[in-house]
Amino acid sequence: MGNTFGHLFRITTFGESHGGGVGVVIDGCPPQLKISAEEIQVDLDRRRPGQSKITTPRKETDTCEIVSGVFQGQTLGTPITILVRNKDQRPQDYGEMATKYRPSHADATYDAKYGIRNYQGGGRSSARETIGRVAAGAIAKKILRQVAGIEIVGYVKRIQDIEAPIDPDSVTLEQVESNIVRCPNPDFADEMIARIDRVRKDGDSIGGAVECVARKVPKGLGSPVFDKLEADLAKGMMSLPASKGFELGSGFAGTFLTGSQHNDEFYTDADGNIRTRTNRSGGTQGGISNGENIIIRVAFKPTATILKEQKTVDQQGNETTLSGRGRHDPCVLPRAVPMVEAMMALVLCDHLMRHQGQCKLL
Amino acid sequence: MGNTFGHLFRITTFGESHGGGVGVVIDGCPPQLKISAEEIQVDLDRRRPGQSKITTPRKETDTCEIVSGVFQGQTLGTPITILVRNKDQRPQDYGEMATKYRPSHADATYDAKYGIRNYQGGGRSSARETIGRVAAGAIAKKILRQVAGIEIVGYVKRIQDIEAPIDPDSVTLEQVESNIVRCPNPDFADEMIARIDRVRKDGDSIGGAVECVARKVPKGLGSPVFDKLEADLAKGMMSLPASKGFELGSGFAGTFLTGSQHNDEFYTDADGNIRTRTNRSGGTQGGISNGENIIIRVAFKPTATILKEQKTVDQQGNETTLSGRGRHDPCVLPRAVPMVEAMMALVLCDHLMRHQGQCKLL
Amino acid sequence: MGNTFGHLFRITTFGESHGGGVGVVIDGCPPQLKISAEEIQVDLDRRRPGQSKITTPRKETDTCEIVSGVFQGQTLGTPITILVRNKDQRPQDYGEMATKYRPSHADATYDAKYGIRNYQGGGRSSARETIGRVAAGAIAKKILRQVAGIEIVGYVKRIQDIEAPIDPDSVTLEQVESNIVRCPNPDFADEMIARIDRVRKDGDSIGGAVECVARKVPKGLGSPVFDKLEADLAKGMMSLPASKGFELGSGFAGTFLTGSQHNDEFYTDADGNIRTRTNRSGGTQGGISNGENIIIRVAFKPTATILKEQKTVDQQGNETTLSGRGRHDPCVLPRAVPMVEAMMALVLCDHLMRHQGQCKLL
Amino acid sequence: MGNTFGHLFRITTFGESHGGGVGVVIDGCPPQLKISAEEIQVDLDRRRPGQSKITTPRKETDTCEIVSGVFQGQTLGTPITILVRNKDQRPQDYGEMATKYRPSHADATYDAKYGIRNYQGGGRSSARETIGRVAAGAIAKKILRQVAGIEIVGYVKRIQDIEAPIDPDSVTLEQVESNIVRCPNPDFADEMIARIDRVRKDGDSIGGAVECVARKVPKGLGSPVFDKLEADLAKGMMSLPASKGFELGSGFAGTFLTGSQHNDEFYTDADGNIRTRTNRSGGTQGGISNGENIIIRVAFKPTATILKEQKTVDQQGNETTLSGRGRHDPCVLPRAVPMVEAMMALVLCDHLMRHQGQCKLL
Repeated sequence: MGNTFGHLFRITTFGESHGGGVGVVIDGCPPQLKISAEEIQVDLDRRRPGQSKITTPRKETDTCEIVSGVFQGQTLGTPITILVRNKDQRPQDYGEMATKYRPSHADATYDAKYGIRNYQGGGRSSARETIGRVAAGAIAKKILRQVAGIEIVGYVKRIQDIEAPIDPDSVTLEQVESNIVRCPNPDFADEMIARIDRVRKDGDSIGGAVECVARKVPKGLGSPVFDKLEADLAKGMMSLPASKGFELGSGFAGTFLTGSQHNDEFYTDADGNIRTRTNRSGGTQGGISNGENIIIRVAFKPTATILKEQKTVDQQGNETTLSGRGRHDPCVLPRAVPMVEAMMALVLCDHLMRHQGQCKLL
Repeated sequence: MGNTFGHLFRITTFGESHGGGVGVVIDGCPPQLKISAEEIQVDLDRRRPGQSKITTPRKETDTCEIVSGVFQGQTLGTPITILVRNKDQRPQDYGEMATKYRPSHADATYDAKYGIRNYQGGGRSSARETIGRVAAGAIAKKILRQVAGIEIVGYVKRIQDIEAPIDPDSVTLEQVESNIVRCPNPDFADEMIARIDRVRKDGDSIGGAVECVARKVPKGLGSPVFDKLEADLAKGMMSLPASKGFELGSGFAGTFLTGSQHNDEFYTDADGNIRTRTNRSGGTQGGISNGENIIIRVAFKPTATILKEQKTVDQQGNETTLSGRGRHDPCVLPRAVPMVEAMMALVLCDHLMRHQGQCKLL
Repeated sequence: MGNTFGHLFRITTFGESHGGGVGVVIDGCPPQLKISAEEIQVDLDRRRPGQSKITTPRKETDTCEIVSGVFQGQTLGTPITILVRNKDQRPQDYGEMATKYRPSHADATYDAKYGIRNYQGGGRSSARETIGRVAAGAIAKKILRQVAGIEIVGYVKRIQDIEAPIDPDSVTLEQVESNIVRCPNPDFADEMIARIDRVRKDGDSIGGAVECVARKVPKGLGSPVFDKLEADLAKGMMSLPASKGFELGSGFAGTFLTGSQHNDEFYTDADGNIRTRTNRSGGTQGGISNGENIIIRVAFKPTATILKEQKTVDQQGNETTLSGRGRHDPCVLPRAVPMVEAMMALVLCDHLMRHQGQCKLL
Repeated sequence: MGNTFGHLFRITTFGESHGGGVGVVIDGCPPQLKISAEEIQVDLDRRRPGQSKITTPRKETDTCEIVSGVFQGQTLGTPITILVRNKDQRPQDYGEMATKYRPSHADATYDAKYGIRNYQGGGRSSARETIGRVAAGAIAKKILRQVAGIEIVGYVKRIQDIEAPIDPDSVTLEQVESNIVRCPNPDFADEMIARIDRVRKDGDSIGGAVECVARKVPKGLGSPVFDKLEADLAKGMMSLPASKGFELGSGFAGTFLTGSQHNDEFYTDADGNIRTRTNRSGGTQGGISNGENIIIRVAFKPTATILKEQKTVDQQGNETTLSGRGRHDPCVLPRAVPMVEAMMALVLCDHLMRHQGQCKLL
């Protein structure tokens, strides 16, 4: 039951990296939304491998097919199934991994849990699983945009110790997409790219942090007490491969302040809206959106698969060594950006529908 | 639908800080577990206000009643309801808050979402809501201990910038409970207590980080891909009042390392178990427990309610000022420790049952 | 996880017939609904024992307390907890049942499932559990009435072989409540009452069928394909104690017709609404309400507990005999009427909110 | 959110009758189950159109592909996706239905709910949707057989007024499959076939009742109080296309008896098992299986689409007439048998896993 996310806008992803394909079933999409495979493909292309010299060179076009739920260009209100066939499979690259456990990978835990695993390309633990999320996220983003004008922009905030100053209130998708590392600050982007490239040549990997902002979010989304907006966002982000941490607004840094420094004062703006002067809260209070920008950050660890030789064990527990093969990302962050955006969109879309279901009834 | 957490071991909390009471319904508890109100009360006492000079002076005994689900000292397998009546209520303390919004509090967002709120004592957004979680957590901890010998220990790791070195592999509940701030390192505890006391006298507040470890967790818990163990832990922790960040294992700090520095090498221990030499993964890989200790950290912001005067607005948007009244914690962390432990226990207990349901069938 | 019903309007019931009490937590109730304990009590009084000579003589007032979720007479949008304390308990009546299994009762299956049970008064399998449902149903009915003018009327259609002709399109609550058996046809009611009374004196029991109609239901409620309106209604009704069958519209009788006899022809009424001339469909087509009256029937078996001596076994499997003691209903149907209404209201309320959440978004 | 069924063994179906295809995602299947497309195809072939002269002549092979979740012939514990492409599509047959509503069909209600529908072949309301259920049911049946030796046999019990005497305790799949109407009593089968054939020639349709038995079900399955076994079975069956009624054990007929006639006496059999001498309960008491055979019946109405001319309206409400075209079943029951079996298997499999998750823990 772990492959479903959301309640009213609910997705179920399926598929292993090697096998028939990967995809998603979206249940609860509103009817009469105009949607095409081309629109979905835009985000899939931002996610796909082989898009630049700092991502894995695997050549997957990740072309999607809408199998169900859309008729004459519009959603039916019935489940939307999106399927991407696996193409560039090289099972021979994974022969060694059939028996040896890659350090900090899910090989060993899948074996422990299920007693079986598809060792080719990581199987279900492969980042290919996120294709379904990104496809569903593209639809969720469109709904949010159309219904409430909500804008979601994710970007690479930090690679290892290179942290770029970026204004979440004004950053644009165009700025993000202007370079291959998806950092909207060009100077820092260049340094990040150079760093990743150096590490890649060294057969190693690095991590960093993705930041994501949702703007023009209406007040009132989020359901106390367990389904707080930040709780569902945290779950969504921590379910992404390689994520190790999540924070909202001031996050960990905010815990170094005092209450009088940290609190967001209220004021009334020129249009009569109640606003906060600062946004250390990150757009929610008590788990409910307050109309300010929702700002979150996700920590992604350095890619586990590296070309350097590492000590490990095989399935029988015999100690051995392993050198990564296959074709892997030296840094997951550029491709993680659309994944983070997708999870943000999925959470907001679900809560928009839940809010309308409960609170707009009477 | 936001007041329920878990699937097979599922809790629903209810209640506002002022009104008839607060509590929890636990659905799915295994039958024939010996449990008493006294055992539950132990954790409620760790959570209750008025327990020391650095917590709110409100005097609530938070005495719990088991309303259903237990017969002759044993669980029936039916819903367990635990009720704590509200006692030390001073609605008069909250008169001003009926109309003025406390900065960084949920007053305004509840109004925006529901168009109504119980302004007394924070209503549903009060930390009193966590009584139900802590009570349920006490039962979950007992199940985990009894079934698998799992030990859960939470503690204050950091207050503002005072960070204590603590060994998660050996820390004990007794060490944690040996002082009022619940930091198991006595020297650092003293400094933390002094800091909180100083800030309290100043009418201000501070935050910090709670760390929590689960030891002797069997391999295989956690359900890819959305219900990864760390995803459910993140959701649970980020649903706690005042939490702003979550991390697992190496967390944000780990993103400054390279893959070759970060990866946890496998080895086989003397008993033939496959283990990792380091534990930057924090006890899970691919969302599934790997048998190492699960280690998480939660950032708690400085308490929003402070005695210092702050600028704010009233419900009509008129700008005004507000000085906190009521009796509040200058720092939530000492009382947050049992809450974090409870959420850890709830997540593990649910996944233990899910794992057994799916993977032990054939 | 079996004690929760519904998604957006979601209830969790708790409690055994003997013990601290029984009740319900309602999650997802819209905010700002005016509600009082008195209004809820009206339906509880229709359900309570001791209301007439043809129900069990147990004297329970079943007085309810609203523990949470209501403030100054209005719902908060937070969980509403309703608690009814157990009062007229006679555990001594159940001594024999601690070891002997009552035929066609849940004693043996609870033991088989949980290895433990509260044998007093049936424990969790007691019809007292339905107090929570009826209380929640009272709120759901009010929402439905207020939002959409929906009227729900249940009544006894048949006792054993005494079947009353009743027009579901015009029957009123007043007619139903005009006699103690809750059959709105007075002549048939008299015969039913006499029959039940005769069977009661004989120490035996009888069953029958409750019919329930929902009028003025808007078109469009119900979610294909598993959450069809009739599927959720069937689940709700078959979860009631003693129910053995469910049918919608023409039901089983309709299967004796041909398609040309059975189909409901469409026409356009004077107001321009598309209607059907007949209503063999029972108000839904393809699981979605079509604007016609929703009509369902539920079969309730004769009460299992009878005063006549029956053969049975004890927990160890020794054959023995048992004569029912305690105070039991000779026929559950008069008290089942508000239960059926409650389940109808809960299903419709949940689907109203779901429909609004998904389909009114774009 | 209506396209998912089950909790631990959970299926999500997708697809319209015209479009890319139909299928199912199964989440929670235990790992290491041997399964092949061929095994699944067996039940799909029992469900497919064109299998005999008394079913629709449409020629669909309904060949299934396992897209994910199976590796080297065994389940991985990850989501299993089964896809069946739509082949024999004749959208031209449905031109008239784009604007005219078929009586007692879901055309009008889909329009009312979603404001859009795929009018070709019934779209999502087509019985093609059940392909996913039947495929998942094939896997569930295999699990039940392998884990607990559970046998599920469904059959046509009644066509219109032709009701066959069949012993549910001994009936075999071979007997059921020995004729095209799937009634294991050959004499009655012949009469049923003749009746259906006559009605078919007349351009009309008929209905009836399917009975289904599950044998060797262990005691203890089913979760009080809402997720009673019979409640989940009722929901599953009433979610099937064309079903109008559900009953368990004695069902509606049992309500004509007295309690002393109806109760199932307990006894201890030669192996020391507590059993009941009769089985009017139908295999459950209080919602929990009692070890006796689970016996249910489902009423299926006469097929709505008939070739005779019927009065109806178009989308604008103009009155018109419609003569069914397309190729339709004169009686859905022969093909409904594997659907009923599938729903029985899905419910039991889910509850087997839930029972093991909760009750086998301590």
